[in-house]
Amino acid sequence: MTITLIGAGNLATNLGHALCAAGHDISQVYSRTQKAAATLAAMLCATPVTDIMHIAPGADVYIVSVADDALAAVADGLTRHLCNHQEAAGRVPLIVHTAGSIPMTAIPCSRRGVFYPMQTFSKRRLVDFSAIPIFVEAEHDDDLGRLMQLAQSITEHVVQLNSADRRYLHLAAVFCSNFTNHCYTLASQILSQHGIPFDTMLPLIDEVAEKVHHMPPAEAQTGPARRNDQGVMQAQLNLLTDNPTARQVYEVMSHSILKTS
Amino acid sequence: MTITLIGAGNLATNLGHALCAAGHDISQVYSRTQKAAATLAAMLCATPVTDIMHIAPGADVYIVSVADDALAAVADGLTRHLCNHQEAAGRVPLIVHTAGSIPMTAIPCSRRGVFYPMQTFSKRRLVDFSAIPIFVEAEHDDDLGRLMQLAQSITEHVVQLNSADRRYLHLAAVFCSNFTNHCYTLASQILSQHGIPFDTMLPLIDEVAEKVHHMPPAEAQTGPARRNDQGVMQAQLNLLTDNPTARQVYEVMSHSILKTS
Repeated sequence: MTITLIGAGNLATNLGHALCAAGHDISQVYSRTQKAAATLAAMLCATPVTDIMHIAPGADVYIVSVADDALAAVADGLTRHLCNHQEAAGRVPLIVHTAGSIPMTAIPCSRRGVFYPMQTFSKRRLVDFSAIPIFVEAEHDDDLGRLMQLAQSITEHVVQLNSADRRYLHLAAVFCSNFTNHCYTLASQILSQHGIPFDTMLPLIDEVAEKVHHMPPAEAQTGPARRNDQGVMQAQLNLLTDNPTARQVYEVMSHSILKTS
Repeated sequence: MTITLIGAGNLATNLGHALCAAGHDISQVYSRTQKAAATLAAMLCATPVTDIMHIAPGADVYIVSVADDALAAVADGLTRHLCNHQEAAGRVPLIVHTAGSIPMTAIPCSRRGVFYPMQTFSKRRLVDFSAIPIFVEAEHDDDLGRLMQLAQSITEHVVQLNSADRRYLHLAAVFCSNFTNHCYTLASQILSQHGIPFDTMLPLIDEVAEKVHHMPPAEAQTGPARRNDQGVMQAQLNLLTDNPTARQVYEVMSHSILKTS
């Protein structure tokens, strides 16, 4: 398919590479900043644009992959621009976004959809898409078919999911990804203060992730809070007196584990 | 070496299997409960005992692997029992514990040490010890050598660490392991309420763990709190009104990510 990528951030960079590798033609890459547009466009053999008015009509799919709080404005500008162009030719563009927590209706175009690859993306680490689940939704059935076909060209795990349920999926992903990674960050701060390298934690981190492939997380839970070991918990809180933020995380997480167990 | 295992819980079960597989002789397994002692002892070709007074003298190492809040009492009873027996023969037993957050001095024996394999253990999942770091400490240099040799027989990663630093290591492990797993549990609750299977999260969970093999966790951080996206955060808090515990975790974690970024 011919695809225009609106956005050049972490997700757009990873998705652009995957689509390109699957043989799709990325015609243009839009970003507000020249450098971001040029960098990603060069990697995808596409044309960089920094003005929505310069986005060309005629692509099979327009994928809007910008920060959630910029999405409404970009989708609005893009829809007005393209519809002006294309309605004369009797063709309405298909515009989709990639945001887990934003409803499809954030796009004010009659042919709209969502293409949400659920993963944590960074520009400097390109991930293998084949294991990533992609959640798709579309206003029209034929567009849903197109999006499923596009998703199936880069992964084996394509799921149709509506906007209402996708909000909860994204919320769960925030717990499994963002909060989990932040626990690693707090641990790395504690370790660096005592000269212990963070990579000491990697076998533990790997096993915690691997374990929930084999048993439910509630059953995999271990540790002082799971055992309600007040002595250890109080001693560990005392180690965090100089770090009130980490101390608060410790208190709230331990309390939540106690309530769940 | 000839080893007596005091405890039959998650760690003792995993450690016992690893030591047995490395060719050591587990002579006795102690647990307060007959069933736990008998089950583990049978797997390790050892004799079960449920009374500390029946623990035999003469083992090369006594490994105390019981719940942290039971450790002091068990170590005390064991020391008095064995020293009564062995002092007549001019031999003091070597008693070690496996608890990350407890100082070596919790053992009132003059030959004492710590043998702390840093991992999350469950009885029903036996882990491969070869990648697990084991942190050792001993009162006497020759016992430190013995414990390092014992550790090296089951893993390539043996580190000498004193009790003061080990407290921080264990605290960091609580963040990387117990708190991380609890984030998975809260996610699984949210998903099950909306009929989405938990294993949908596994590629994401795996990538979050894998990513910190390649970049520091602070750099790997993504998500609404990292972007200070107040709109998404408020919407997600609203999804958690029926789950005040998860809501509080969401608030505190997001606040901590914001402060760290």
